[in-house]
Amino acid sequence: MSNEQLDQLRNELDKVNLDLLSLINKRGELVQQIGEVKEKHGMNRFDPVREREMLNHILQEHDGPFEYSTVEHLFKEIFKMALELQEDDHSKALLV
Amino acid sequence: MSNEQLDQLRNELDKVNLDLLSLINKRGELVQQIGEVKEKHGMNRFDPVREREMLNHILQEHDGPFEYSTVEHLFKEIFKMALELQEDDHSKALLV
Repeated sequence: MSNEQLDQLRNELDKVNLDLLSLINKRGELVQQIGEVKEKHGMNRFDPVREREMLNHILQEHDGPFEYSTVEHLFKEIFKMALELQEDDHSKALLV
Repeated sequence: MSNEQLDQLRNELDKVNLDLLSLINKRGELVQQIGEVKEKHGMNRFDPVREREMLNHILQEHDGPFEYSTVEHLFKEIFKMALELQEDDHSKALLV
Protein backbone atom coordinates (compact mmCIF):
# COMPACT_ATOMS: atom_id res chain seq x y z
CA MET A 1 0.00 0.00 0.00
CA SER A 2 1.36 3.37 -1.00
CA ASN A 3 0.64 6.29 1.29
CA GLU A 4 2.94 9.28 1.11
CA GLN A 5 1.71 10.84 4.34
CA LEU A 6 2.24 7.60 6.28
CA ASP A 7 5.71 7.11 4.77
CA GLN A 8 6.69 10.65 5.72
CA LEU A 9 5.47 10.25 9.31
CA ARG A 10 7.30 6.92 9.59
CA ASN A 11 10.50 8.51 8.33
CA GLU A 12 10.16 11.19 10.99
CA LEU A 13 9.55 8.49 13.61
CA ASP A 14 12.70 6.62 12.51
CA LYS A 15 14.67 9.83 12.89
CA VAL A 16 13.26 10.43 16.39
CA ASN A 17 14.15 6.82 17.33
CA LEU A 18 17.79 7.37 16.31
CA ASP A 19 17.92 10.74 18.10
CA LEU A 20 16.63 8.99 21.23
CA LEU A 21 19.29 6.28 20.85
CA SER A 22 22.00 8.89 20.49
CA LEU A 23 20.83 10.75 23.62
CA ILE A 24 20.55 7.53 25.63
CA ASN A 25 24.15 6.69 24.78
CA LYS A 26 25.29 10.24 25.51
CA ARG A 27 23.53 9.94 28.88
CA GLY A 28 25.36 6.67 29.53
CA GLU A 29 28.72 8.31 28.85
CA LEU A 30 27.89 11.22 31.18
CA VAL A 31 26.87 8.82 33.94
CA GLN A 32 30.17 6.96 33.52
CA GLN A 33 32.07 10.25 33.87
CA ILE A 34 30.04 11.22 36.95
CA GLY A 35 30.80 7.80 38.42
CA GLU A 36 34.53 8.35 37.89
CA VAL A 37 34.48 11.79 39.54
CA LYS A 38 32.48 10.42 42.50
CA GLU A 39 34.84 7.47 42.88
CA LYS A 40 37.85 9.81 42.87
CA HIS A 41 36.27 11.76 45.74
CA GLY A 42 35.16 8.66 47.65
CA MET A 43 31.48 9.51 47.15
CA ASN A 44 28.73 6.91 46.98
CA ARG A 45 27.83 6.32 43.34
CA PHE A 46 24.13 5.75 43.89
CA ASP A 47 22.33 8.85 45.18
CA PRO A 48 18.55 8.35 45.60
CA VAL A 49 17.99 12.02 46.58
CA ARG A 50 19.64 13.27 43.38
CA GLU A 51 17.60 10.71 41.39
CA ARG A 52 14.34 12.00 42.91
CA GLU A 53 15.38 15.60 42.16
CA MET A 54 16.10 14.72 38.52
CA LEU A 55 12.72 13.00 38.22
CA ASN A 56 10.87 15.97 39.78
CA HIS A 57 12.64 18.33 37.39
CA ILE A 58 11.63 16.19 34.40
CA LEU A 59 7.99 15.91 35.53
CA GLN A 60 7.80 19.68 36.09
CA GLU A 61 8.79 20.24 32.47
CA HIS A 62 6.54 17.50 31.05
CA ASP A 63 3.96 18.80 28.61
CA GLY A 64 2.92 16.15 26.13
CA PRO A 65 0.50 13.38 25.26
CA PHE A 66 1.70 10.89 27.91
CA GLU A 67 0.50 10.51 31.49
CA TYR A 68 2.92 11.72 34.17
CA SER A 69 3.03 8.19 35.61
CA THR A 70 4.09 6.82 32.19
CA VAL A 71 6.90 9.38 31.89
CA GLU A 72 8.00 8.60 35.45
CA HIS A 73 8.07 4.87 34.70
CA LEU A 74 10.17 5.39 31.56
CA PHE A 75 12.73 7.61 33.28
CA LYS A 76 13.06 5.14 36.15
CA GLU A 77 13.96 2.54 33.51
CA ILE A 78 16.50 4.96 32.00
CA PHE A 79 18.01 5.67 35.42
CA LYS A 80 18.20 1.93 36.12
CA MET A 81 20.17 1.42 32.89
CA ALA A 82 22.80 3.87 34.10
CA LEU A 83 23.08 2.16 37.47
CA GLU A 84 23.75 -1.19 35.79
CA LEU A 85 26.49 0.49 33.76
CA GLN A 86 28.20 1.82 36.89
CA GLU A 87 28.06 -1.61 38.53
CA ASP A 88 29.69 -3.12 35.43
CA ASP A 89 32.50 -0.58 35.49
CA HIS A 90 33.08 -1.21 39.16
CA SER A 91 33.25 -4.99 38.71
CA LYS A 92 35.67 -4.57 35.81
CA ALA A 93 37.85 -2.28 37.91
CA LEU A 94 37.99 -4.85 40.70
CA LEU A 95 38.96 -7.62 38.27
CA VAL A 96 41.92 -5.80 36.69
CA MET B 1 30.54 19.48 48.96
CA SER B 2 31.64 21.77 46.18
CA ASN B 3 32.88 20.12 43.03
CA GLU B 4 32.79 22.13 39.83
CA GLN B 5 33.39 19.17 37.57
CA LEU B 6 30.56 17.18 39.14
CA ASP B 7 28.17 20.15 38.95
CA GLN B 8 29.00 20.67 35.29
CA LEU B 9 28.42 17.00 34.44
CA ARG B 10 25.14 17.02 36.37
CA ASN B 11 23.98 20.12 34.48
CA GLU B 12 24.74 18.33 31.22
CA LEU B 13 22.82 15.29 32.47
CA ASP B 14 19.80 17.48 33.35
CA LYS B 15 19.89 18.91 29.84
CA VAL B 16 20.02 15.43 28.29
CA ASN B 17 17.07 14.37 30.49
CA LEU B 18 14.95 17.26 29.18
CA ASP B 19 16.02 16.60 25.58
CA LEU B 20 14.94 12.98 26.07
CA LEU B 21 11.59 14.13 27.49
CA SER B 22 11.06 16.44 24.54
CA LEU B 23 11.82 13.66 22.03
CA ILE B 24 9.59 11.17 23.86
CA ASN B 25 6.68 13.61 23.62
CA LYS B 26 7.46 14.40 19.98
CA ARG B 27 7.43 10.64 19.34
CA GLY B 28 4.05 10.38 21.06
CA GLU B 29 2.60 13.09 18.82
CA LEU B 30 3.95 11.38 15.68
CA VAL B 31 2.45 8.06 16.76
CA GLN B 32 -0.90 9.76 17.28
CA GLN B 33 -0.71 11.22 13.76
CA ILE B 34 0.23 7.82 12.31
CA GLY B 35 -2.71 6.28 14.16
CA GLU B 36 -5.08 8.83 12.62
CA VAL B 37 -3.79 8.20 9.08
CA LYS B 38 -4.05 4.42 9.57
CA GLU B 39 -7.57 4.73 10.94
CA LYS B 40 -8.61 6.85 7.96
CA HIS B 41 -7.38 4.09 5.64
CA GLY B 42 -8.89 1.28 7.71
CA MET B 43 -5.44 -0.10 8.56
CA ASN B 44 -4.69 -2.02 11.75
CA ARG B 45 -3.01 0.34 14.21
CA PHE B 46 -0.67 -2.23 15.73
CA ASP B 47 1.90 -3.56 13.26
CA PRO B 48 4.37 -6.03 14.84
CA VAL B 49 6.42 -6.32 11.61
CA ARG B 50 6.99 -2.56 11.44
CA GLU B 51 7.87 -2.59 15.16
CA ARG B 52 10.51 -5.31 14.60
CA GLU B 53 11.93 -3.34 11.63
CA MET B 54 12.20 -0.18 13.74
CA LEU B 55 13.95 -2.13 16.48
CA ASN B 56 16.42 -3.74 14.04
CA HIS B 57 17.19 -0.34 12.55
CA ILE B 58 17.88 1.10 16.01
CA LEU B 59 20.10 -1.83 17.03
CA GLN B 60 22.08 -1.57 13.77
CA GLU B 61 22.90 2.04 14.60
CA HIS B 62 23.67 1.38 18.30
CA ASP B 63 27.21 2.28 19.27
CA GLY B 64 27.47 3.18 22.94
CA PRO B 65 28.17 1.98 26.46
CA PHE B 66 24.95 -0.06 26.86
CA GLU B 67 24.37 -3.71 25.98
CA TYR B 68 22.21 -4.36 22.89
CA SER B 69 19.71 -6.23 25.09
CA THR B 70 19.41 -3.17 27.38
CA VAL B 71 18.73 -0.86 24.42
CA GLU B 72 16.21 -3.34 23.04
CA HIS B 73 14.42 -3.51 26.39
CA LEU B 74 14.23 0.29 26.64
CA PHE B 75 12.84 0.76 23.13
CA LYS B 76 10.24 -1.95 23.72
CA GLU B 77 9.10 0.13 26.72
CA ILE B 78 9.01 3.24 24.52
CA PHE B 79 7.00 1.41 21.83
CA LYS B 80 4.60 0.13 24.50
CA MET B 81 3.97 3.72 25.67
CA ALA B 82 2.86 4.67 22.17
CA LEU B 83 0.51 1.72 21.95
CA GLU B 84 -1.20 2.72 25.20
CA LEU B 85 -1.68 6.20 23.77
CA GLN B 86 -3.39 4.86 20.65
CA GLU B 87 -5.70 2.68 22.74
CA ASP B 88 -6.66 5.74 24.80
CA ASP B 89 -7.46 7.74 21.69
CA HIS B 90 -9.53 4.90 20.32
CA SER B 91 -11.53 4.53 23.55
CA LYS B 92 -12.14 8.26 23.65
CA ALA B 93 -13.31 8.23 20.03
CA LEU B 94 -15.78 5.46 20.81
CA LEU B 95 -17.16 7.34 23.81
CA VAL B 96 -17.89 10.58 21.97
